[in-house]
Amino acid sequence: MRIKPGIWLITLLIFLFSGEAYGQSKSLNGYTSEQAAAQYELESRFDGLIQAGNLRDWLKRLAARPQHLGSPYRKDNAEFILSLFQKWGFDARIETFYVYFPTPKVRKLEMVAPTSFHAKLTAPPVEGDPVTAMQEEQLPSYNAYSIDGDVTGELVYANQGLHQDYAELERRGIDVQGKIVIVRYGGGYRGIKPKVAAEKGAIGCLIYSDPRDSGYGQGDVYPRGSFMPPDGVQRGSVLDITLYPGDPLTPFVGATLQAERIDPRDAPTLSRIPVFPLSYADAQPLLEAMTGPVAPPDWRGALPITYHLGPGEAEVHLKLEFDWKLTPAYNVIAKMEGSERPDEWIIRGNHSDGWVAGAADPLSGLIVLMEEARVMSELTRSGWRPNRTLVFCAWDAEEPGIIGSTEWVETHAAELKEKAAVYINTDSNGRGFLWGAGSPCLEEFFNQVARDVVDPQTGVSVAERAWASRAMRTGSAERSPIRLSALGSGSDFASFLQHLGVISLNVGYGGENRGGIGHSIYDTFPYYVRFGDPAFEYGVALAKTTGRIALRLANADILPFEFKDFVNRLSQFIKEIRELWERMRTETEQQNQLIAQKVFALAQDPKLSFVSPDRLNPVPILDFSPIEEAIFRMEESIRAYEEARIAFVQSGSSLSLEEKLRLDRILYKSERALTRAEGLPTRPWFKHFIYAPGSYAGYGVKTFPGLREAIEKRKWTEARAQIPILAEVLEEFTTQVKRARELLESAVK
Amino acid sequence: MRIKPGIWLITLLIFLFSGEAYGQSKSLNGYTSEQAAAQYELESRFDGLIQAGNLRDWLKRLAARPQHLGSPYRKDNAEFILSLFQKWGFDARIETFYVYFPTPKVRKLEMVAPTSFHAKLTAPPVEGDPVTAMQEEQLPSYNAYSIDGDVTGELVYANQGLHQDYAELERRGIDVQGKIVIVRYGGGYRGIKPKVAAEKGAIGCLIYSDPRDSGYGQGDVYPRGSFMPPDGVQRGSVLDITLYPGDPLTPFVGATLQAERIDPRDAPTLSRIPVFPLSYADAQPLLEAMTGPVAPPDWRGALPITYHLGPGEAEVHLKLEFDWKLTPAYNVIAKMEGSERPDEWIIRGNHSDGWVAGAADPLSGLIVLMEEARVMSELTRSGWRPNRTLVFCAWDAEEPGIIGSTEWVETHAAELKEKAAVYINTDSNGRGFLWGAGSPCLEEFFNQVARDVVDPQTGVSVAERAWASRAMRTGSAERSPIRLSALGSGSDFASFLQHLGVISLNVGYGGENRGGIGHSIYDTFPYYVRFGDPAFEYGVALAKTTGRIALRLANADILPFEFKDFVNRLSQFIKEIRELWERMRTETEQQNQLIAQKVFALAQDPKLSFVSPDRLNPVPILDFSPIEEAIFRMEESIRAYEEARIAFVQSGSSLSLEEKLRLDRILYKSERALTRAEGLPTRPWFKHFIYAPGSYAGYGVKTFPGLREAIEKRKWTEARAQIPILAEVLEEFTTQVKRARELLESAVK
Repeated sequence: MRIKPGIWLITLLIFLFSGEAYGQSKSLNGYTSEQAAAQYELESRFDGLIQAGNLRDWLKRLAARPQHLGSPYRKDNAEFILSLFQKWGFDARIETFYVYFPTPKVRKLEMVAPTSFHAKLTAPPVEGDPVTAMQEEQLPSYNAYSIDGDVTGELVYANQGLHQDYAELERRGIDVQGKIVIVRYGGGYRGIKPKVAAEKGAIGCLIYSDPRDSGYGQGDVYPRGSFMPPDGVQRGSVLDITLYPGDPLTPFVGATLQAERIDPRDAPTLSRIPVFPLSYADAQPLLEAMTGPVAPPDWRGALPITYHLGPGEAEVHLKLEFDWKLTPAYNVIAKMEGSERPDEWIIRGNHSDGWVAGAADPLSGLIVLMEEARVMSELTRSGWRPNRTLVFCAWDAEEPGIIGSTEWVETHAAELKEKAAVYINTDSNGRGFLWGAGSPCLEEFFNQVARDVVDPQTGVSVAERAWASRAMRTGSAERSPIRLSALGSGSDFASFLQHLGVISLNVGYGGENRGGIGHSIYDTFPYYVRFGDPAFEYGVALAKTTGRIALRLANADILPFEFKDFVNRLSQFIKEIRELWERMRTETEQQNQLIAQKVFALAQDPKLSFVSPDRLNPVPILDFSPIEEAIFRMEESIRAYEEARIAFVQSGSSLSLEEKLRLDRILYKSERALTRAEGLPTRPWFKHFIYAPGSYAGYGVKTFPGLREAIEKRKWTEARAQIPILAEVLEEFTTQVKRARELLESAVK
Repeated sequence: MRIKPGIWLITLLIFLFSGEAYGQSKSLNGYTSEQAAAQYELESRFDGLIQAGNLRDWLKRLAARPQHLGSPYRKDNAEFILSLFQKWGFDARIETFYVYFPTPKVRKLEMVAPTSFHAKLTAPPVEGDPVTAMQEEQLPSYNAYSIDGDVTGELVYANQGLHQDYAELERRGIDVQGKIVIVRYGGGYRGIKPKVAAEKGAIGCLIYSDPRDSGYGQGDVYPRGSFMPPDGVQRGSVLDITLYPGDPLTPFVGATLQAERIDPRDAPTLSRIPVFPLSYADAQPLLEAMTGPVAPPDWRGALPITYHLGPGEAEVHLKLEFDWKLTPAYNVIAKMEGSERPDEWIIRGNHSDGWVAGAADPLSGLIVLMEEARVMSELTRSGWRPNRTLVFCAWDAEEPGIIGSTEWVETHAAELKEKAAVYINTDSNGRGFLWGAGSPCLEEFFNQVARDVVDPQTGVSVAERAWASRAMRTGSAERSPIRLSALGSGSDFASFLQHLGVISLNVGYGGENRGGIGHSIYDTFPYYVRFGDPAFEYGVALAKTTGRIALRLANADILPFEFKDFVNRLSQFIKEIRELWERMRTETEQQNQLIAQKVFALAQDPKLSFVSPDRLNPVPILDFSPIEEAIFRMEESIRAYEEARIAFVQSGSSLSLEEKLRLDRILYKSERALTRAEGLPTRPWFKHFIYAPGSYAGYGVKTFPGLREAIEKRKWTEARAQIPILAEVLEEFTTQVKRARELLESAVK
């Protein structure tokens, strides 16, 4: 069946060439104006059906007990969620994986010198907040995937435990070999801290929540305020998710019962040394007992002590034993089949497991996903069906290492590579401003959605409020669209984007629900309704946002992707890398001059034990032009594609369904073109060559990761080798764009 | 008598045109090479006679008891110092002034709501540090020149109590009218804090030492380390020294017994509201009891509490009564008459009064001055006499408000205007790096001195070590001279430079003797020999530095001033002001746009009480070209003067003593040309139009103060009026340079 091309391309082009990305115009990318009117009508009904009361009821129910991976209430919740999806008419089921998961048997931390102190390792309950008192059901505080261990050593304070922190210690002549490092939370994924500590020779790692970062230094503590009380502990995984996320024993394959598993002793993503999290009440006596040089100003926290670096008198004994078991993880997967293009999937996910109750993280996002699904099922009653298939996923085992989603992605990799058009992720949600991160081809589309959702507190669009927040920060009143930042890791989009190359988006509201109790026993329903989103109005706003995103993607005549933002972003990335390289050249040169002129020796206080750094090898010339030329050709190709679209529209031609399916597939597989089967040099699970979580950041992205990290690590041969590979990757993308252009050209009558 | 011109001008010119300002060359500005050789021989003998043991013995003796203005031991010390100067053959005497000085009768601070708390207001003694236990003789902690008062009010925390802090409070809708503000030390002269608080309508002001700034947040506290213990209090004056320093009852005239005094009720430099200093032990319960919004991140200190802004439940009662008495201040003045040019004075000063013992502040500098004087007297035994007169001054009453030196300067103003060539100030001294501040015409000269003094810890010159310290900060290994920063206020140079226009210099070592106990009972001999300068090697280095400065200035054939650094500095100042004005234009425009677009309203959390700022009046065009043209003409004039010097040298001519005296006088009176009799617009005591302490900084300098402050205060008419005045001032200076050139031209044979 040939349908009239209508004017969707024209509205698209108007949007494209007017530079409109934020404003009053009601055009919809991927829709004719007639289709847009119908879609608006649908969205209006969608909005009208959303009930804040559901969000509240579900949150209260789901967060009523501790519900971490493997807990009885986790299973109960999964079955509850399944029952709802089934009630709403979805093709829903629980897909179970069996993941290697440690829970504590022995947790002992004591100071053995200069005085004796036994860490309490428990946090007190709060009146009126019953989950905080369910200590039998709570997971005790620990870092999941720490290895077992029994170590005794002097303490060294290493700030946030990142590379630059050890460089600072080395400048002061402090070596952590054989020591136990104590570091504060913050600055990146906690799993990086024991990883670097082990590389530097430490035998143990303690991670504590400094009150400066999350406690009274930020605001009043719970229950008076929203920040971490003295005995609260941030639980959390230390799995090396930068090597691969998911079950540590089943990289590349789903952790089904039958899956082949590697020997736990060979699992590279477990920590190398025992690592354990502490409250600031437990950390204070240790830090206070330390001697050695005073910590640099930026390293000092808000405890009422002088922060010393050690090593010295303070010595601790850490003993950890875990129960390592294959534990069932329950993903709830619910499908609503598309009427016209059932083999194109719009996937919407949020995890469901918490570290304890997990009211904010993740349930505040999950309840929104559930309400979206419920309302869509309501819409089907009046005959509506999505063009494309909608898949709703309530992931389990995200907290221990993004496991539920990763195992599902690995299990269904072949099908997903064919069918997955977009993955839309949420996690926690709160009061405040809309933010988004994801593939740049969705940026214009995302801003059209933000334009059409009203902020519950101010009555302007959420796009306008997000702009106002940026304007306050930058001081510039110039209007600008919301920029999608690049995705690293830390939530369930990771496998979709980085293992498969699925166009992905991560979305939420926040900024006005500041708190510091994440991953503790205090992340509860009573807390959330005081400090998170009391009236669930931002839950409703998120449902309107991600619901619109899903609906528009599912119904669009042609998938509403724009590539010009991507090519701009690529130019920015390579510019950053060029600047990094130039800065390293300058700084190397400068540092070597300072060394040659004995500046370090002369400027240092001889009473302190500073060490003059070693001479650095010079930074060689790197020729980035193959990448820059590939970007240039991509830009040309995108321009030609846009011209072809104009010509196509002007010709009055139309596309058959088969052509639309082909065009859709070319468009959404463009992201696949950015992956390579062999993966990144040191971590083959990561297939995407444009984005990966930094090997020493964890959550934070590195763009052009193979090249950028090679430069950062001064591996010049590897950096040189990456350049032609990246150029090839970009050419693959350009080829996809060219195929889209050819399709349009051939369709011109 | 005509003397041979020799080659001093040639060496000077080589120095000038080689750009040498730091290096190995041993030329001396103002000296022929023969004279330089003799001078070097003299300096070598000078160095050889310095005894660290004297420094130690005198410090121990002078700091043995509390010795604040008006104390018995202060008088005893003055007489001791006098006796030494007399023993060394100086024409020495005590010059006494009678200054209006308050000491506490009633000091009461209590919290009256929400709970009751009585501030302790005493600091415990330290074993082995006897002065700390002499509580009968110590001045209790207080802020001198607070008015008497008895006030009760709610607390508001205003950070450092500066203008921008109140702007921040206003943005949050917090008004201090009728409230008592509590502020932390730091950010400028403490006297600014009650001044601004009173302007904003507060009824009282508490100033406390936050441990972040001076206590355990910086390092271990005394006696374990060098920082402020919990009960320690920084005493200090709150006299408005930006209006005029010195006795509050005798502006413009010396506070002799007979002087006419203004009514204390009319004295404009007393505080307007009662103000009182607190330890952090006494401040903590008050701050902890406060409610209201959480303080911005930069405002938070290191106490283990959430810093709230108030107002709210916390209410305090402050009662202060003082004994206001005319108190004798004993300046010791000692002269060594110049052999050839007795009416040209090189004045060397350091104050002698402390807040308690004052071991570091001021005695660590005073003992150096005394040793310089002793060694010079030794040198006279072998027949040496300075060319010019040397005047040594041990000032009293500096701590209460730079009073001793100011009264002396006001008393001898007429004579000093004629005779004072240079004033060389020191105050505290410590281990570390040489620094200097003062008139730019001394910069080259100062660097020649720094080149010739050896750093005791590294064996390189103190110039090289100071450069290494800068290189560490800037990352640049390029060699550069020590820059003399511009003088504001805060020590005894203030009246010399800013009231009379005497070329001034303030010098010291430091940076490796960090501590936080200034103005407390812990500034003692035992403290200083542990944390200040244990072996007095930097005391010796300072004696070699300031001794050389005095000797070279006293002996020079022609005063060694260079004006090109001054003109460069002026260009920098006007550039800064232009940038300030441009920034204000941009920011005003920007803020008004943000207001017009409702950004403040949209971006703020509606649950917090932010207030959208008012629209600002636009910043008008200001024409700085009259000043820029005056600078240009000055530059031309300096160049012509230098050409005249070359021509003079090439001509083989020579100067008579009378011509040298005339040239000297033109040179040192060049700084007088920068003053005007009417003084600055709002503060006629300040005569210098290039430098003044900022009206809301206190110590920190404002260059082109009349113009800069008018712009900062958005007083555009005043700013416009200042421009031609500044151009005139600069022309006066240019005229002086022209006179120097004419003198040289007329002396050519």
